Amino acid sequence: MNLQSALPSEIRALIRDNKLIQHTSGMAKGYIQANVVILPNKYAYDFLKFCYRNPKSCPLLDITEVGEHSFPKYGPDADIRTDVGEYYVYRDGVHVETRHDIKDLYGKDMVAFIIGCSFTFEHALLDADIPVRHIEEGHNVPMYITNIPTEQSGVFHGPTTVSMRPMSMAQAIRATEITTHFKGAHGAPLHIGDPAAIGIKDISKPDFGEAVEIRDGEVPVFWGCGVTPQSVCLNVKPELMITHAPGYMFITDIKESELLY
Amino acid sequence: MNLQSALPSEIRALIRDNKLIQHTSGMAKGYIQANVVILPNKYAYDFLKFCYRNPKSCPLLDITEVGEHSFPKYGPDADIRTDVGEYYVYRDGVHVETRHDIKDLYGKDMVAFIIGCSFTFEHALLDADIPVRHIEEGHNVPMYITNIPTEQSGVFHGPTTVSMRPMSMAQAIRATEITTHFKGAHGAPLHIGDPAAIGIKDISKPDFGEAVEIRDGEVPVFWGCGVTPQSVCLNVKPELMITHAPGYMFITDIKESELLY
Repeated sequence: MNLQSALPSEIRALIRDNKLIQHTSGMAKGYIQANVVILPNKYAYDFLKFCYRNPKSCPLLDITEVGEHSFPKYGPDADIRTDVGEYYVYRDGVHVETRHDIKDLYGKDMVAFIIGCSFTFEHALLDADIPVRHIEEGHNVPMYITNIPTEQSGVFHGPTTVSMRPMSMAQAIRATEITTHFKGAHGAPLHIGDPAAIGIKDISKPDFGEAVEIRDGEVPVFWGCGVTPQSVCLNVKPELMITHAPGYMFITDIKESELLY
Repeated sequence: MNLQSALPSEIRALIRDNKLIQHTSGMAKGYIQANVVILPNKYAYDFLKFCYRNPKSCPLLDITEVGEHSFPKYGPDADIRTDVGEYYVYRDGVHVETRHDIKDLYGKDMVAFIIGCSFTFEHALLDADIPVRHIEEGHNVPMYITNIPTEQSGVFHGPTTVSMRPMSMAQAIRATEITTHFKGAHGAPLHIGDPAAIGIKDISKPDFGEAVEIRDGEVPVFWGCGVTPQSVCLNVKPELMITHAPGYMFITDIKESELLY
């Protein structure tokens, strides 16, 4: 099967049968891939409210009903217990296990959230000939913990984490125009320019991912990042929390163009 | 005090002291006015999820923490128990009382939701010389129950209610361009043209509000309407539900221009 032109349902079936365990980048081209956060129902309301209050960090795409395995809009035939290639299992805020399915962990009181990811807007930037340096360099995007607080919701609070892509100021303005139309994938940048203004001490030392070259005449451009909801959840030390492993995204049935508005 | 140029906090203080009990249209010009829905906490998660899934009908602006009286972003100093001029109290889905405050009803388990309203985008349409017929005619907007289902969330489900404004097709296209940028105030239209296509049998007989003249060469333009969340909640027959009375809106501290994106 050509993984790039395959349908999301075909890819998810291969993953479900453990016939495909690899990073999903480039698979089912044109369809939205998503971050996954699974929590016990007792946290669901405050986390949903957290997403509402922090749309640039946590652009929520869909939610299961309590104990259900599929997403009404983004994956009616999906099974969130099996359709991600690799899951991270956290207990009391500590990563204790990496798994290929979570059937025995996903009880009747669990709720799954899928959150937009930067793959979507990076495709739009590349289409507009705006550089995406970490893709050029062939590694993960650099991410930084900032001093920008998130808007609290119940027990959920903490700093905003951002991803960074360097480009010229003219490209940064064009990238802002483009990404403001992708609110389901972090939307417009949170900051352009001076890293110190948002509490980043050393741009060459990201907190997650790998540093990229910033060329003469380029400014760093910072977007909200899917690490924020994960780190905010881990702060709460929930008795059980399950996420996708980095790069092993949930592939939805919805096209990237549907996020464009 | 000039009510049109007064600050939201000044208007709310007059309302709180029962010194101002009238429709809020035109007060605190430039600031967002909102629909109010207050429910016991047991319904809050499913209703929040309902708003998420139906953004054109239920453009949620802010939520109180459980039992709290103020809104973190839209009214940090507001008191939702007193700052609306007239409240409707519903028990088991039946309107039982009209009140000027709800201090004794708003217990520690209540949650207040404020939802964007069409005042915001009507101001933008008028600025663009697009006619708003019911304002010209000096009465309430016509509203219709359609056959467009809302996306269910838990116990909340039911048909979408729309408001209607007639205009030329060129104006309808311009109005679509403008209102797509006001997603916090119902966003772009749900339908343009043939009423029967969305289940409206007789355009001259609205389900709520009053009919308006549709002139030769005009098409009806239909937007999502704040009646939808109220009617969907009443379907559930909650033991207690409180809303603003029609026209007595909650005046927020946020300017209409902040909704523009």
